[in-house]
Amino acid sequence: MISEQYKNMLKGKSIIRELAEFAAARGEEIGYENVFDYSLGNPSVPVPKEFTKTMMDLLTSKSPAELHGYSPSLGIPSVRKKIAQSLNRRFHMNYTENHIFMTSGAAGAIAHAVRCVTQPGDEVLTFAPFFPEYHPYIDITDAVLKVVPPNSEDFQVNFSLFEEMLTEKVSAVLINSPNNPSGVIYSTATIQKLSDLLRKKEQEYGHEIFIISDEPYREIVFEGVEAPYVSNYYDNTLSCYSYSKSLSLPGERIGYIAVNPACIDSDLIVSMCGQISRGIGHNCPPSIIQLAVSEVVDLTSDMSVYETNMNLIYNKLVELGITCVKPGGTFYIFPNALEEDAKVFCQKALKYDLILVPGDSFGCPGYFRMAYCIDTEKVERSLPALEKFIKSEYKI
Amino acid sequence: MISEQYKNMLKGKSIIRELAEFAAARGEEIGYENVFDYSLGNPSVPVPKEFTKTMMDLLTSKSPAELHGYSPSLGIPSVRKKIAQSLNRRFHMNYTENHIFMTSGAAGAIAHAVRCVTQPGDEVLTFAPFFPEYHPYIDITDAVLKVVPPNSEDFQVNFSLFEEMLTEKVSAVLINSPNNPSGVIYSTATIQKLSDLLRKKEQEYGHEIFIISDEPYREIVFEGVEAPYVSNYYDNTLSCYSYSKSLSLPGERIGYIAVNPACIDSDLIVSMCGQISRGIGHNCPPSIIQLAVSEVVDLTSDMSVYETNMNLIYNKLVELGITCVKPGGTFYIFPNALEEDAKVFCQKALKYDLILVPGDSFGCPGYFRMAYCIDTEKVERSLPALEKFIKSEYKI
Repeated sequence: MISEQYKNMLKGKSIIRELAEFAAARGEEIGYENVFDYSLGNPSVPVPKEFTKTMMDLLTSKSPAELHGYSPSLGIPSVRKKIAQSLNRRFHMNYTENHIFMTSGAAGAIAHAVRCVTQPGDEVLTFAPFFPEYHPYIDITDAVLKVVPPNSEDFQVNFSLFEEMLTEKVSAVLINSPNNPSGVIYSTATIQKLSDLLRKKEQEYGHEIFIISDEPYREIVFEGVEAPYVSNYYDNTLSCYSYSKSLSLPGERIGYIAVNPACIDSDLIVSMCGQISRGIGHNCPPSIIQLAVSEVVDLTSDMSVYETNMNLIYNKLVELGITCVKPGGTFYIFPNALEEDAKVFCQKALKYDLILVPGDSFGCPGYFRMAYCIDTEKVERSLPALEKFIKSEYKI
Repeated sequence: MISEQYKNMLKGKSIIRELAEFAAARGEEIGYENVFDYSLGNPSVPVPKEFTKTMMDLLTSKSPAELHGYSPSLGIPSVRKKIAQSLNRRFHMNYTENHIFMTSGAAGAIAHAVRCVTQPGDEVLTFAPFFPEYHPYIDITDAVLKVVPPNSEDFQVNFSLFEEMLTEKVSAVLINSPNNPSGVIYSTATIQKLSDLLRKKEQEYGHEIFIISDEPYREIVFEGVEAPYVSNYYDNTLSCYSYSKSLSLPGERIGYIAVNPACIDSDLIVSMCGQISRGIGHNCPPSIIQLAVSEVVDLTSDMSVYETNMNLIYNKLVELGITCVKPGGTFYIFPNALEEDAKVFCQKALKYDLILVPGDSFGCPGYFRMAYCIDTEKVERSLPALEKFIKSEYKI
């Protein structure tokens, strides 16, 4: 019989996807270059040339049967080793290949991590604003996602509400810094305080509480901003990484889980990930993409455009009297809407061909998200539309 | 808390993988060319040159941001359309892109299909001998896998036992023809009889019974053998395909589900697959591999070597007095062992550097599997070892 569970999931269609579809349709009418589409987090800058060169080299020089052959379900050992070494160099860790599990991006990493460190009925806490896809990742497991309301002053952690919600039932805390949608990076003080609190509660409850650290934007950090590496502060950490943003490869579905060597049962957790992949039939990311990524493991795309765009937008928002926490990284900004219902606000913006995403699905009604991974030239052209929208609709 | 469910899965380590590891270790000692490794189903022939050429063209001519950008979660529409058209040409079907869902091989396809067409507690029937990975695919869903004992005469369906087990609780039947491990192809008569029985039971029970048709070996069919396309005989069919074997791309994780347009809720099932992928964080196969495969959708690798190998091995087995159903396709053969416990039989074979897999995990104790996707030259060199093994150990 047709599954009711997955049928019901169809009702929760993504508002972001809907807006992106609207933008595409409007583009058909007036030319997509005239639609100021801030809906989707699809990187606008190309992958480094070295990646493409490596792909070509693999295709021309390696025997096809070997190149396209099965990868072990944990990932290709040489690839996992290179990733471990890169992390060790950059973050003073001591990973080996046995702590790295190859995934289909951060999405696959989070979905696996949650399965590894929860039992049926366990709670996973996350902090608003949060990436709405956490719901499908966790809702189809036997764990329960609970959302800690935002600290709207600076989008760091709301510790008083967090401590209230951090009951014995919590087995994992899912954090995302640099954050989608706010662009905010958790400070060292925040990570330190969070770690101290979790250690205290682990003692009190007599069981581990894991941090699942969602880090696809780890390499997109703006000038002068500090971005602490979570595993440096907390042992029971599973870092979930994706090359989607740093190498502009979202369609190739590649990332990893790095389990802190100091985490309890770290080797076991990596092996369990392999069993989960086996069960869902995913097995592992594509061999050729694993091999190519491993050759550019210390590179990123040229992502300077994102900071340029952020400054242009942030300054215009401030000029227009819109309050907004200044992003420390990513390619998102998450300002206050000028009316209580951000859905109405974003609906009105469509008249000016501005595609903005209401904050409701991120757990923050009254805010909106702009994904500024677009050409700077288009950002510049969008600013007069933004000004016209605000001045006409809100008489500011 | 660490998941007991996935921890327990670690106990069920694959015997095939263990034997492959043994073969690799023995290869270190005596040279891998001297190990007659019949353990793994890893294709030995290269991908068609046209695939590699298309990959190179995509890398050189397409804008990287576009090439490596997000694919819709159901797969790239143009790719799904080309697959639908190819199936229509070859099997006289009427698929559109809306009936095709892109997966990470047949593994991902089966795991998704089972989730789509079962409710908690529903039974899925399969027929021995069967691919042992069906267990992990189904055991982590809320459905239950039950295995119909073999028809050991010809490895077609054991209809009397099947009808007994086909109770009201069964919502899907999982078949695999051409079959791993037996190499047997279900005849038109078998598919027809199976379909008639299922239609009768659907009427009787008042609910659908779906066929999940696992078809990764669909293109490896030997001369003079007929291989019926299941959807031509039964409406409620989900075909699970992989390019792993036909294009020799097992590491690139690409395949699809083709839902029969006549299947109940066919469009809905495809959309549900997208929700499942979203939940497990897999999303979709890599964009570049989707695009490249769609350009070679009517091609296969040159797989004639598999039939050559089969004939060499089959004739030698018969000559040695080993009984065996002659394969109609695949690159597997599944003979009777010469003693009751095939594990002991395969253990003894190791002395002769012959790596054979006992049939127990395929649901057929007393048999063994040989995967002859290796060079013919090596098959030829293995035959004296096989003869020596049988004659020395069994005094035949």
